[in-house]
Amino acid sequence: MKHTITFKPDNVSVTVSKGSNLLDAALEAGVHINASCGGQGVCGKCRVVIEEGEVDSEKTENISEKKYDQGWRQACRTSVLSDCTVRIPDESRGLRRLVTQKLDIAKGERKISALDTKLLAEGWRLDPIAIKAPTRLAPPTLQDNVSDLSRFLAGLRQQHQIENVSADIRCLKTMPEILRTSDWHVTATLMAAPAANNLLSPDDKTSPLNLVRIQGGDTSDENFAIGLDIGTTTICAELIDLKNGRVMAERAEYNRQVKYGDDVITRIVYAQQPEGRKKLQSLVVSSINQVIDELLEETGSSEKSVSCIAAAGNTTMTHLLLGLETRYIREAPYVPVASSVPVVWARDIGIDLLPDCVQIHNFPSVASYVGGDIVSGILGSGVFQKKELTLYMDIGTNGEIVLGNRDWLACAACSMGPAFEGGGIKHGMRADQGAIEGFNINPVTLEPMIVTVGRKGPRGICGSGLISILSELLSACVIDRRGKFIRDLASERIRPGRFGHEYVLAWAENSATGHDIVITEVDIENLMRAKGALFAGFLTLLESLDLSFDDLDRVIIAGAFGRYINLEKGKLIGLFPDIPVEKFHFIGNGSLLGARLVCLCKAMLPEAERIARMMTNIELSDNASFMDKYMGALFLPHTEARLFPNVSEYLEANSQMVSRERKVS
Amino acid sequence: MKHTITFKPDNVSVTVSKGSNLLDAALEAGVHINASCGGQGVCGKCRVVIEEGEVDSEKTENISEKKYDQGWRQACRTSVLSDCTVRIPDESRGLRRLVTQKLDIAKGERKISALDTKLLAEGWRLDPIAIKAPTRLAPPTLQDNVSDLSRFLAGLRQQHQIENVSADIRCLKTMPEILRTSDWHVTATLMAAPAANNLLSPDDKTSPLNLVRIQGGDTSDENFAIGLDIGTTTICAELIDLKNGRVMAERAEYNRQVKYGDDVITRIVYAQQPEGRKKLQSLVVSSINQVIDELLEETGSSEKSVSCIAAAGNTTMTHLLLGLETRYIREAPYVPVASSVPVVWARDIGIDLLPDCVQIHNFPSVASYVGGDIVSGILGSGVFQKKELTLYMDIGTNGEIVLGNRDWLACAACSMGPAFEGGGIKHGMRADQGAIEGFNINPVTLEPMIVTVGRKGPRGICGSGLISILSELLSACVIDRRGKFIRDLASERIRPGRFGHEYVLAWAENSATGHDIVITEVDIENLMRAKGALFAGFLTLLESLDLSFDDLDRVIIAGAFGRYINLEKGKLIGLFPDIPVEKFHFIGNGSLLGARLVCLCKAMLPEAERIARMMTNIELSDNASFMDKYMGALFLPHTEARLFPNVSEYLEANSQMVSRERKVS
Repeated sequence: MKHTITFKPDNVSVTVSKGSNLLDAALEAGVHINASCGGQGVCGKCRVVIEEGEVDSEKTENISEKKYDQGWRQACRTSVLSDCTVRIPDESRGLRRLVTQKLDIAKGERKISALDTKLLAEGWRLDPIAIKAPTRLAPPTLQDNVSDLSRFLAGLRQQHQIENVSADIRCLKTMPEILRTSDWHVTATLMAAPAANNLLSPDDKTSPLNLVRIQGGDTSDENFAIGLDIGTTTICAELIDLKNGRVMAERAEYNRQVKYGDDVITRIVYAQQPEGRKKLQSLVVSSINQVIDELLEETGSSEKSVSCIAAAGNTTMTHLLLGLETRYIREAPYVPVASSVPVVWARDIGIDLLPDCVQIHNFPSVASYVGGDIVSGILGSGVFQKKELTLYMDIGTNGEIVLGNRDWLACAACSMGPAFEGGGIKHGMRADQGAIEGFNINPVTLEPMIVTVGRKGPRGICGSGLISILSELLSACVIDRRGKFIRDLASERIRPGRFGHEYVLAWAENSATGHDIVITEVDIENLMRAKGALFAGFLTLLESLDLSFDDLDRVIIAGAFGRYINLEKGKLIGLFPDIPVEKFHFIGNGSLLGARLVCLCKAMLPEAERIARMMTNIELSDNASFMDKYMGALFLPHTEARLFPNVSEYLEANSQMVSRERKVS
Repeated sequence: MKHTITFKPDNVSVTVSKGSNLLDAALEAGVHINASCGGQGVCGKCRVVIEEGEVDSEKTENISEKKYDQGWRQACRTSVLSDCTVRIPDESRGLRRLVTQKLDIAKGERKISALDTKLLAEGWRLDPIAIKAPTRLAPPTLQDNVSDLSRFLAGLRQQHQIENVSADIRCLKTMPEILRTSDWHVTATLMAAPAANNLLSPDDKTSPLNLVRIQGGDTSDENFAIGLDIGTTTICAELIDLKNGRVMAERAEYNRQVKYGDDVITRIVYAQQPEGRKKLQSLVVSSINQVIDELLEETGSSEKSVSCIAAAGNTTMTHLLLGLETRYIREAPYVPVASSVPVVWARDIGIDLLPDCVQIHNFPSVASYVGGDIVSGILGSGVFQKKELTLYMDIGTNGEIVLGNRDWLACAACSMGPAFEGGGIKHGMRADQGAIEGFNINPVTLEPMIVTVGRKGPRGICGSGLISILSELLSACVIDRRGKFIRDLASERIRPGRFGHEYVLAWAENSATGHDIVITEVDIENLMRAKGALFAGFLTLLESLDLSFDDLDRVIIAGAFGRYINLEKGKLIGLFPDIPVEKFHFIGNGSLLGARLVCLCKAMLPEAERIARMMTNIELSDNASFMDKYMGALFLPHTEARLFPNVSEYLEANSQMVSRERKVS
């Protein structure tokens, strides 16, 4: 059930679900309410008056008995039960949000969760990469004493019409005991067998299957897969029920390799040290073990229920996972060992949480810096199937972009660094509890509105928070187009620090860390470099194909953001192109989407190979045009205003409004 | 060049090659010359007089100057250079050999070496299981920076028209360094890839290949395979040049598992102990490592020249090699884990002499006691291709027999035990230097003629020696039909011992061990049990198919004998059926023959699978008819004289002759 909330005095309305938090509703409406503690209810700054409508609210010590009776509430502790009219008192207000003809910040807000249970690729059906076949066999007799394996294969043929099965030696080692202790009633796990060139075979009755495991009894109702996105900074994973395609749990953990470098280049350098490659392999594997452990624990599942893993990672991550040499990825002319890699056993690479009968399918990559993660994303998002010209971007440490449709695909990688994942940012963090994900600022008082994941005490800033902060500081004329703090603003929240000037998002007393949470000029520089590299990538890719932003039918954004991202704010800082928000789509973690898809439909395996082959890689690292474009993009939003017409118009008008208000006050 | 040697006074002639040893010639002619030291030249008993012809002979201290001038020579130190007439003095003579119409001992002698370089299967061509493809690649550039693997596969396609190649992860681990240190000039080792059901694919252009190894430079002139026969008692191996099919060296070593039991049953019992299976695996692997080491050392070859291994073993040996459970092979209803087993990496099972890029193809088996060794033998001998009805026997520890032709094949296993390989025989040994391989006896003086492998001091008795000894002791009426020494013979060579009566083959002073070399009644019992089991197997198999010995077109004998075997002597003791010697063929080690064949022609791989499927196994172990026949066969040659008409006639006549001679003397 939906309700409309109208915020006074600016008469800005927003429609939200029943039970929504009022602070969230304000954030979504683009309405500022001072809020210093992230929404945990302790700062008492987000006081509003409920003029009409029904709400459910806690009585807190920040509001006197009398005021409570008059309808005063703390927005962060209030949820709406009907249409409401809410007045924000002057002390808590910001400026009325500017809306231009082409740019309305409130419309730029998107919840990633709106899309992430729906796969975007078409034409697939539930026909999983690993199947379980419960089989009852007649015990051997002197008249019928064929080998255990022959008996078993005959059972699969007769009871499941499954032919063309190879047994792995590991499976043979456990087979006799399992057959006999289970009274010849067992369940086979069969996995699509890789054919030549490491291609997995398409879906037809005669395609070969590997018998990878036998379990006693009928275990066919426990047939799970793990989808893995092995990022440079973050490992994301989901547990997928192969019976119905349901995602049972999702987890993310930092890639423990991070301690040996923020990006793939520093990892490769470390891998060249003695034992370095081995160490990095064991670190990524221990991260994977942890995340799998958490998935199993969260769902109360046994490790025996996991039948296979599909993993998507960039080329370096895939190489390090498999223990392959990475140095030639880094050295010109940037050559990986292999684009398509063989299926391996989980235990062979150290994933010891799972029994040794689980195979890992790694997505094929395109080039040294366009990896299996992007191939997986293109698969999952269905870009390769659509007529529409799509720009696909995966905003991780590596910043990979793809341009194309069902007829052609071009791709490029622009080394963004981990800034939007919180790396190299003083108080950067993943979108975990306490991460600032929403931000707004009163341009006159410079008081912030901060909202954290889980409404916990602020601990740091996640990706969507960083976009918000940068864009709001720019809109409110707190930083200039070069990303520097404007020096003559009088606020104790702006102060010089070790990393240039900084803005205090949350004071120590309200933070969960006991320290002030800040954003520094160095943080802002890192974010600008990251977005600059990505945007220069867009331009180079489009130009090399004689296209412009206007030719794009769709923009798909994948990557490790928080749950919210505001497109208009992304445009404001020059991260996204200045085209209508309607053309943008979020798919959350695109790599996981593709990994899930191959798990659910094995006919998608050769499609992944086809995508990898179909993509033309545009090498940016030695491209002079790219370097020019990168330098031009180190500005907010960009040195060339013509590239951001609507944003420029908005920022100009907004800047005048802020100046007026500051003079008035 | 051939020469005819005529032995006086009996006027027995034999044709031998120029340079042949005179003692060997006498043995082949069935002429007895006393010889107590195995032919090493020290006992001085084998003195003969060269009456005509030219010989090359050492002057030894056993012959005086005067006698030497008269033409006296030691036979064992003399080789023939022309046609000769040789007189054996009375002191050295035996009886003239009896020849009946249907049985002539001298004609029963066969050298195995006469056949063993010629493969008997037809319709194959040199198209080896592993090929080497030297390839020159263009180094990568920024314009052409595909992965190392893609570049390599493109090179294989362009330079060798090889498609459909999968790379193994191990190969990818070494690929980048090898490509770069070898200046992009490398050699691929490609092996026929197993398809489903562990079948290796047939020979066509599109059949899949595994890229298993890359070596720097052009190493294509070193492409060797190792053929392995993994016997219960003996591991035989040969190094095969895949370029031309030549066998470069052969070796045999005891299977080190022997210390945990003589036959497969005792091994299986041991495997059930804690760590037992693991221990047996490591023992067979260490035996294989040793034999491979010897092959490489003998030929001065590097371990890098070995591209693959083809191994044939009985079902238990194959299971133990791969670390599979064996207990259900032993327990009724006798079920192996698998008949067709997957291709494995040599290093994965501990064959650490070879780099980790060598794969082992194990021959498929038929049943628990009809293994890959027999399938390999049927393949190698071409039985499955011929119209003629063939009885094939592999006389190893396991005693496997096959009956059939190109239309059908039936098989059975009769547990012979290792007696004919020297196991359970007091002075039994392999056909190594010093093994008594030829034997003859003077029925009156009971003085022996013994000839050893390499004419070294006697150290023991090998398989062909045991057959000779048993048959000669029987012919000379030294043992009776029950295998017991006749008690009233006056000779110090016959004496009571710990294992029943025994006959001294060589006195300590002439032996290489410093002890008397003997054959005991217990040894004879063991040999009779072994031959009894085999012969009962023949009868059961024939009877179950409503056939008799007369229906056989051919008999093929494979197995671990010495270099010589005398068919008539084998018939005399009831080891071989009493049919014309012309029907018999020796192929030496049949398992190695088949292993060599699949190495040389990969189209033979699916043929091996077809043979395994084609064979009907007749289970003997619980077969009452077999047990009856076994009891009947515990006699020399057999309780039923009608089964051995020619042998019975011969033995009768011979016995009368011996009686006469003994009375005369």
